[in-house]
Amino acid sequence: MQQIIYIMDFLGVVVFAVSGSLAAGKKRMDLFGVLVLAMVTSLGGGTLRDMLLDSGPVFWVADPAYLLVVLGASIATFIAVRTLNAPRRRWFLVFDAMGLAVFTVIGTAKALETGTGAGVAVVMGVMTGVAGGIIRDVLSAEVPLVLRKEIYAVGSLCGAIVYVLMNMLHAVDTASIIVSILSTFIIRMAAIRWGLSLPVFTFKGGGSTDGEEK
Amino acid sequence: MQQIIYIMDFLGVVVFAVSGSLAAGKKRMDLFGVLVLAMVTSLGGGTLRDMLLDSGPVFWVADPAYLLVVLGASIATFIAVRTLNAPRRRWFLVFDAMGLAVFTVIGTAKALETGTGAGVAVVMGVMTGVAGGIIRDVLSAEVPLVLRKEIYAVGSLCGAIVYVLMNMLHAVDTASIIVSILSTFIIRMAAIRWGLSLPVFTFKGGGSTDGEEK
Amino acid sequence: MQQIIYIMDFLGVVVFAVSGSLAAGKKRMDLFGVLVLAMVTSLGGGTLRDMLLDSGPVFWVADPAYLLVVLGASIATFIAVRTLNAPRRRWFLVFDAMGLAVFTVIGTAKALETGTGAGVAVVMGVMTGVAGGIIRDVLSAEVPLVLRKEIYAVGSLCGAIVYVLMNMLHAVDTASIIVSILSTFIIRMAAIRWGLSLPVFTFKGGGSTDGEEK
Repeated sequence: MQQIIYIMDFLGVVVFAVSGSLAAGKKRMDLFGVLVLAMVTSLGGGTLRDMLLDSGPVFWVADPAYLLVVLGASIATFIAVRTLNAPRRRWFLVFDAMGLAVFTVIGTAKALETGTGAGVAVVMGVMTGVAGGIIRDVLSAEVPLVLRKEIYAVGSLCGAIVYVLMNMLHAVDTASIIVSILSTFIIRMAAIRWGLSLPVFTFKGGGSTDGEEK
Repeated sequence: MQQIIYIMDFLGVVVFAVSGSLAAGKKRMDLFGVLVLAMVTSLGGGTLRDMLLDSGPVFWVADPAYLLVVLGASIATFIAVRTLNAPRRRWFLVFDAMGLAVFTVIGTAKALETGTGAGVAVVMGVMTGVAGGIIRDVLSAEVPLVLRKEIYAVGSLCGAIVYVLMNMLHAVDTASIIVSILSTFIIRMAAIRWGLSLPVFTFKGGGSTDGEEK
Repeated sequence: MQQIIYIMDFLGVVVFAVSGSLAAGKKRMDLFGVLVLAMVTSLGGGTLRDMLLDSGPVFWVADPAYLLVVLGASIATFIAVRTLNAPRRRWFLVFDAMGLAVFTVIGTAKALETGTGAGVAVVMGVMTGVAGGIIRDVLSAEVPLVLRKEIYAVGSLCGAIVYVLMNMLHAVDTASIIVSILSTFIIRMAAIRWGLSLPVFTFKGGGSTDGEEK
């Protein structure tokens, strides 16, 4: 099981690195920009989690294999995109959903292992899943997509809650991991399939209530 | 005294969470975006402070009650704003100023407790007060308001300096806290009342001197 | 040698603080914004490095002299730019390249000292050199310049790799430092002189492959 998780983790890193590289391409960044966006997208969420939990070194400092995987994935994207013009969008989305699911359960489990409460563990799980994409969009000078539309974070949220609940009920860890991953994955795929989204926060009457603004 | 500070801290968290939720609304974010902006606005400054001071776990990891407060405040804002269209701007500004004052003194005191020098303590106090709002604006893809206009950070700066000075003069801690909070609060309210602002940095002669730009 | 490095480090901090202050001026920020941008530009990279390495307190918390230097440099810029309208661009670029070179070697050496592998050390070196400028641009709501054009990070990358290699070959540390600094510096100056840049990542056929986007 541990090994399967490890492999899926690397697959998630690859997909998120590709996603970051493509975002860099959209902003016409150079090769260095591609590398940086690939790194923050795939490693950013887990890095933030490890800094907040403060339980030993950040995962990619402890296991530099992650850096090599990101390097490989981003250079491959850089080269492949120039020659290949029909990326297999459907497969990309499937792998992306899988990456989200695995990152979420890893983050949640790591938080619980360090002894945090249930609420903090859920936050850490979701953060591991989505923070990388948020930093990617910030570096692209855009309002992060995940904050705006589509059920993306909600899948991660459900996966994290499911894992925490099963953990509290003393379920076998392997079962908790599988059910958590499936929860995230299925919700995300359903959201893509039927175009689900969360209610958007719109308020009329324009008047700003923010203390700092005019 | 400790209890009063604790209660005021939570009040500050509520106000900053509302401020973050409203910023999310302005950018038409969805419910998840509202939650994230509420969290970073209200917890971001203290989180950065705790990571920099590196003295034990981040405050909301140690005391998850903060997460619940943010969750409640942001959902309440999400619901209330849709039905209620005349937010009481004046009260909001007063509470915001109070939040700024309390966050500042808490940050400054926490830094001094870990043994930092006076300068670092002032930086930590101001950071606790304003960094959350800066991250909120970055996630909204805007140049942070606090860097541009109005006396906002200056109130926080004065409150932090006052606390450090009184601490160096061995004043009773309760007195230092009260005077520091009043300093920040009064300067902030005066700035709102009379529209005070800092000199803006404008330079003519356009020629860029930045090494990286064309 | 240690002393020369220390002096060059402060010189780098001054130059980066000026660069941050000027960026704040371009966005018409106020005096507080100038201070914040000067701080994040000059101290941001090293701060991120120290938080990731998690080896004792962040450098400017341990040695607050850095804060004073940034404060002085940004206020001087704030005043000087208003009266002086012909900044000596050429000298600024030379000092900026020197700052980049020194920051890079300091970051790389610090990582190796804490026992990281070669790859992580290179990442830390480059991060120390360029992350401050990236945060500066994020706070200016711009796509970071260093991700887009000109050989800037590549100089830093070469300097870091050179240092790591010489370290692995057990070269005298003084020699490693000098060769590393010269590598970064010369590549950066050559890039400015001949307008070198990295290949840009452009892909045609518009179709988004990003999982989150419509």
